[in-house]
Amino acid sequence: MESSEIRELFPILNQKIHGYPLVYLDSAASAQKPIHVIEAVKHYYEWDHSNVHRGVHTLGMRATDAYEGARVKVARFLGATSEKEIIFTRGATSALNLVASSYARTVCRKGDEIVVSAMEHHSNLLPWQQAAKATGAVLKYIPLHPDGTFSIEDVEKSVTNRTKVVSVSHVSNVLGIANPVKQMAVIARKNGAVLVVDGAQSAPHIKVDVQELGCDFYAFSGHKMCGPTGVGALYGRKALLEQMEPIEFGGEMIDHVSLHNASWKELPWKFEGGTPIIAGAIGLGAAIDFLEQIGMNTIAEHDNQLTRYAVEQMERIEDLTMYGPKDGHLGLVTFNLGNIHAHDVATVLDTYGVAIRAGHHCCQLLMRHLSIGATARASFYLYNTEEEVDRFLLALQKTKEYFKE
Amino acid sequence: MESSEIRELFPILNQKIHGYPLVYLDSAASAQKPIHVIEAVKHYYEWDHSNVHRGVHTLGMRATDAYEGARVKVARFLGATSEKEIIFTRGATSALNLVASSYARTVCRKGDEIVVSAMEHHSNLLPWQQAAKATGAVLKYIPLHPDGTFSIEDVEKSVTNRTKVVSVSHVSNVLGIANPVKQMAVIARKNGAVLVVDGAQSAPHIKVDVQELGCDFYAFSGHKMCGPTGVGALYGRKALLEQMEPIEFGGEMIDHVSLHNASWKELPWKFEGGTPIIAGAIGLGAAIDFLEQIGMNTIAEHDNQLTRYAVEQMERIEDLTMYGPKDGHLGLVTFNLGNIHAHDVATVLDTYGVAIRAGHHCCQLLMRHLSIGATARASFYLYNTEEEVDRFLLALQKTKEYFKE
Repeated sequence: MESSEIRELFPILNQKIHGYPLVYLDSAASAQKPIHVIEAVKHYYEWDHSNVHRGVHTLGMRATDAYEGARVKVARFLGATSEKEIIFTRGATSALNLVASSYARTVCRKGDEIVVSAMEHHSNLLPWQQAAKATGAVLKYIPLHPDGTFSIEDVEKSVTNRTKVVSVSHVSNVLGIANPVKQMAVIARKNGAVLVVDGAQSAPHIKVDVQELGCDFYAFSGHKMCGPTGVGALYGRKALLEQMEPIEFGGEMIDHVSLHNASWKELPWKFEGGTPIIAGAIGLGAAIDFLEQIGMNTIAEHDNQLTRYAVEQMERIEDLTMYGPKDGHLGLVTFNLGNIHAHDVATVLDTYGVAIRAGHHCCQLLMRHLSIGATARASFYLYNTEEEVDRFLLALQKTKEYFKE
Repeated sequence: MESSEIRELFPILNQKIHGYPLVYLDSAASAQKPIHVIEAVKHYYEWDHSNVHRGVHTLGMRATDAYEGARVKVARFLGATSEKEIIFTRGATSALNLVASSYARTVCRKGDEIVVSAMEHHSNLLPWQQAAKATGAVLKYIPLHPDGTFSIEDVEKSVTNRTKVVSVSHVSNVLGIANPVKQMAVIARKNGAVLVVDGAQSAPHIKVDVQELGCDFYAFSGHKMCGPTGVGALYGRKALLEQMEPIEFGGEMIDHVSLHNASWKELPWKFEGGTPIIAGAIGLGAAIDFLEQIGMNTIAEHDNQLTRYAVEQMERIEDLTMYGPKDGHLGLVTFNLGNIHAHDVATVLDTYGVAIRAGHHCCQLLMRHLSIGATARASFYLYNTEEEVDRFLLALQKTKEYFKE
């Protein structure tokens, strides 16, 4: 399927902004939804909705089958060994908080180490700051090269036998590059640590297999991969999840309750207190079906080719600075245009119908490392076309002209 | 509007189950959704979706306005003094966990008291068990009468000047009665404690005004009041929320981040780490518009009248035991039919198209207090009709006959 055919499946893209066709280049913040996902949620509410697990009536059973069916889809999508290894969460942020609050606080003692990088999104940084404070563990940073990346040698030097957790983004939401998580998993294991992967920017774009990566935990958000907002998932190795205590308590997750104690259900339900995110999980399942029908490798190829094209063209624009290494941008490029503030760039681009993001991208440490206050970011997904990249480039030229006057 | 007209607005109700028209009497577990809510979510994804707060482009601003507009609706719906007092959460369970994890753990010291009742749903019990364990506070129970209720005198005796938190359901999800929260707020305040109200079963059915109730926190779930799954809200008095530390950390909720520290945004965003539940909140806003258009007092009257009718008719069925006081059932009735197991009752009713719930209703302590293992529960909402109650009663007769054979 051509990307022009794919975009027909996304109703939102068929609109004008300030008189120009919408060019949505902000998918790294949140992706748009195909009719398949919108209709799956609608159909669920129109035909099958009920609370799950506890109902013996027909709707209760249909809703439960749909919800647990979505879990099986996520497990298969990530290559988990069992759907019991999949916890539905509010998103990647909640998933990473769960690992930091529950796993890290159980295994870390005073003087142990938690290793992250200064490249991390705040969602994969702040939970570890908190876990370090709560346990007395040391929060260690893998040193970054001047361009913001790190190499596997830097990881080798940072991880020791006092390290209990290494947590890193699979793909950086600012630099767009992939980190060497497969090799990092080997280093972590060798040192008796676990590897946590923030997959928010990889799950939407590339085929992920947690077995092949060798990671222990993997977190992602549904809304960045064509699914609904308010749902995501945590993959965790069964043996680790079994050791962990829940962090939210309520209905659905208990076995036996007495006045001052309670025992938990088995995996995965012990981590899902309260009525689950039923329609969200079902919509996420529909998003996975959609992405798999197109093919994750096809999507990766398209996104990379389009990003490469954008980067090549952007190199020709005078005064335009791109961040991160020259090659290997997976679906996004972060930049500044002369000394025009990134917010001004984004604002002028919007007047031409082009939606990009501007700011610190929830990466204040990386911004400081790169000695910049804010950047603009264009991100590309399966529904974007080369023609849209051209519109974006033209709008950049117009922005330059606007600020020259 | 007649309830027969209202039910036309709920697509799911227009279907047959096992050849019979669906009679959905399980709204206390989760309510159905009117077209207004389904369309609001669909429209959002088809026209306005983007990530919120950080975007300077048109969709980002539209999504932000819609999301923050939903917060204003919730604030007005509950009578909060400001939308800054409204935190969007995954549901009532998450909201109650937030208060127990953050507020209770900050104010409770060893020997302090947290007061609950054995009538509580596990979502308003387990978070307090955990808070008590974490802080050394004593978890005290308001004594229950034989019928499962408690009186304001029992509260007077239970709350002391060592009490820091009193937490209670507004309306019991098993007994269907309302607790005297307004008087409890006075007692709590007099003793220097705060009152937390679990509003999961009251927000859908009666007009709630947190100022009038005098409570300090109020939690509810969207999906029980015609809104989407996976969203709910916590109301908290501003001065208290300002004292509290966040429990989830990530993007969106920070002000400044350094290597080992971070500072938080102002209310309400410091409690909403990560991409929010955007479509969920918008759908919840649409549900509030819908309920208010019909009128909360009209809904309360309808639900109570229908429940009263059901209770009167059920009293005539031999061998049928109802739980809780004779009067004052707000929208639900819990019962057993002779010695037929509640699950069997629900299963046979389903063959006649009638959906009710069976089990411990996430209230194991109350079940034990009433010396019962499981009960059946029929719950009524604005779309139910007297004719449906008659179908339910007929199905109960058929169930009795079935088990007599």
